[in-house]
Amino acid sequence: MLAEFSIIPVGTGESVSAYVSECLRIVDGSGLDYRLNPMGTVIEGEFDEVMTVISSCHKKVAGMCDRVVTTIRIDDRKGADDALHSKIDSVEEKVGKRLKK
Amino acid sequence: MLAEFSIIPVGTGESVSAYVSECLRIVDGSGLDYRLNPMGTVIEGEFDEVMTVISSCHKKVAGMCDRVVTTIRIDDRKGADDALHSKIDSVEEKVGKRLKK
Amino acid sequence: MLAEFSIIPVGTGESVSAYVSECLRIVDGSGLDYRLNPMGTVIEGEFDEVMTVISSCHKKVAGMCDRVVTTIRIDDRKGADDALHSKIDSVEEKVGKRLKK
Amino acid sequence: MLAEFSIIPVGTGESVSAYVSECLRIVDGSGLDYRLNPMGTVIEGEFDEVMTVISSCHKKVAGMCDRVVTTIRIDDRKGADDALHSKIDSVEEKVGKRLKK
Repeated sequence: MLAEFSIIPVGTGESVSAYVSECLRIVDGSGLDYRLNPMGTVIEGEFDEVMTVISSCHKKVAGMCDRVVTTIRIDDRKGADDALHSKIDSVEEKVGKRLKK
Repeated sequence: MLAEFSIIPVGTGESVSAYVSECLRIVDGSGLDYRLNPMGTVIEGEFDEVMTVISSCHKKVAGMCDRVVTTIRIDDRKGADDALHSKIDSVEEKVGKRLKK
Repeated sequence: MLAEFSIIPVGTGESVSAYVSECLRIVDGSGLDYRLNPMGTVIEGEFDEVMTVISSCHKKVAGMCDRVVTTIRIDDRKGADDALHSKIDSVEEKVGKRLKK
Repeated sequence: MLAEFSIIPVGTGESVSAYVSECLRIVDGSGLDYRLNPMGTVIEGEFDEVMTVISSCHKKVAGMCDRVVTTIRIDDRKGADDALHSKIDSVEEKVGKRLKK
C-alpha cells in the first residue's frame, strides 16, 4: 500500500521545514521505504504500519504547536508490490520517454 | 479534533454509494459525532478514536474490492471544543448572514 | 460537477475564520449552489465556473498573507444532476436511516 | 507556486496508468517544470498557468470516461523561487542527512 502525507503547522510562521524535518526523522527511522517530494512524503507498507508512522508524525508536530492540518491520501491495491517504482515505470513506458521525477 | 474522509473504490463501477453506505454504518455506530456532506464525512473526536473509525471504514471497503483510494484531512486544534458547530458559526458571524450548509 | 475546497493561510495565526469568511462572500455571491461544512465548502456547477470561483477565493486569501495552502477535490460525473442532494440521498436510502448532515 | 495533482478515473478498471500517461504528455509538453511521484505530479509555475495545465489534464481524462475524481493541493508562497528543489534541500539540511527522493 502507498500513502502520501503532508503535515502543516498553522499559526507558527511561514517556514514549516523544521516540523517537516522532525517527521522525516521518524519516517527515515521507521524501516519502511519512502520517497520525499516537494509536496509530501510517500510511504510504502502494510496499512497498519504505514498509518502508525503517519500518526507518530502528526502527534510529534501537534506536540510542537497549537494547530496542525494533516492530509493523507492512500492508494491500497491488492497484489501491488514495489508500487513506489512500478507506478512511475508504468507511466513512463506508456508515455514512451523518461519523465522528470 | 476534526477529520474529513472519503473512500473511493477504483475499478468497480461508477456508483460508489453502496461502499459509502457501509462506511456510514460504521461511522453512525461508532458513537462519535459526525456530519455527512456531498464529498465526504467529517468526524469529531480524539485523534486515536477518529483514526480507528476511518481505518475500519477503509478496511471494510478494501475487503469488498481490489483497489481503494482514501483521502483523509485532519484539523487538530488544541482546545477546540464542538468544532463541528463552532467553525461554521464563526464564519457565519463574520460574513454577517446565514450561509447554505 | 462537485468540488470541495479548503484554503489555509500559513503563518498568520491559528484562527483562519477571517480568511474563510472572505471566501464564503465570494462563493455566496457567485450564484452557484454550495454547502459549507466544518472542513470545507462544496460547490456545484460546470468545471470552468466552479474553478473560476475557487481561483478567486485563493487569490483573495493569497493577497492577504504570504503563504496559502489550498486543497481542491473534484468529483466530475457525466449526467449527475443535483449531486449536492442526490449523493447524500442515495447513501441514506442504502443505509436505511436518516444520517447526520 | 507549487501544485500537486492526481486524477483517478472511477469505474473503468483498476489500472489507471493509461489515463495518467495522457496527463503526463500534457504536463511534459507544457514547458512548466514538474516532478512525477508515485502518488501524483507536482508542477511549478504561476497560479494561472499551473491551473490551466491541470484543467487540461482533468478535461482530457473526463473525455475518456464517465467519472473522474481529481485532487489538487496548492502551496503558494510569496517569493519562493525554485521551490521544487528548495523545499527538499531545506528539509535535508535540517535532518542532517540525505533522504530518499
